[in-house]
Amino acid sequence: MSLQGAYEADNIFARIIRGEIPSAKIYEDDDVLCFMDAFPQSKGHCLVISKTSQARNLLDVEAGVLAKLAATTQRLARAVVAALNPDGVVITQFNGAPAGQSVFHLHFHVIPRFDGAPLARHGGGMADAGELKALAAKIAAKL
Amino acid sequence: MSLQGAYEADNIFARIIRGEIPSAKIYEDDDVLCFMDAFPQSKGHCLVISKTSQARNLLDVEAGVLAKLAATTQRLARAVVAALNPDGVVITQFNGAPAGQSVFHLHFHVIPRFDGAPLARHGGGMADAGELKALAAKIAAKL
Repeated sequence: MSLQGAYEADNIFARIIRGEIPSAKIYEDDDVLCFMDAFPQSKGHCLVISKTSQARNLLDVEAGVLAKLAATTQRLARAVVAALNPDGVVITQFNGAPAGQSVFHLHFHVIPRFDGAPLARHGGGMADAGELKALAAKIAAKL
Repeated sequence: MSLQGAYEADNIFARIIRGEIPSAKIYEDDDVLCFMDAFPQSKGHCLVISKTSQARNLLDVEAGVLAKLAATTQRLARAVVAALNPDGVVITQFNGAPAGQSVFHLHFHVIPRFDGAPLARHGGGMADAGELKALAAKIAAKL
């Protein structure tokens, strides 16, 4: 899918928001949802999405939604650092399939980096659901 | 440098803000500066920084500064798309050297992606200054 196009109501994140697909949730309020990436590039890889916006990417998101997503991404990154003590944290946000975007509901990645641990390929192996739930609880405790 | 540490007043972005080092500027106001990455990973790779904050990374930036940086990153990404018509855009923000951060003044990367053009290594070759100025002007015209 290109940078232009219509929002698809049945994308996987929309279905997670609606509770049709399970996820390892870290935090949720009326506006945003933070949950573990099911195909993590590193231990603690998690995501921030809007629950209200039908933005596919950064280009078409509303200003107020973006402000809340940015603040939530910071809050989540701080919690990840407090919970998992990584050596670094990467924030990424992909726009368009050629940029690496695979779900066309705007999302921010929070990816802890640990010295000596290379990143797994994005969309590689699916993580164990129980392990993700334990990580989510550990991060949530630091929010 | 780890995620913890003091802000170094002589980092290269602080020197760019003070005008001690030249840069290909796209946009500047009292709060933020957008300029071309001198070691681009793709054509049109540019950066957004705060001119007022001494935040090294996302973890220690003030809420108001972050909100302005996020809004400016969106504005810059839209201008990059309008100016260069990439197939995708990657936004990255690195925290700590193990995450790929090399300048310890908080910055957001806006990296256009073009089909069939792999990314260059970050910090690889230095771009031609004249070419960067031309790209900056082209992007600025779409802001």
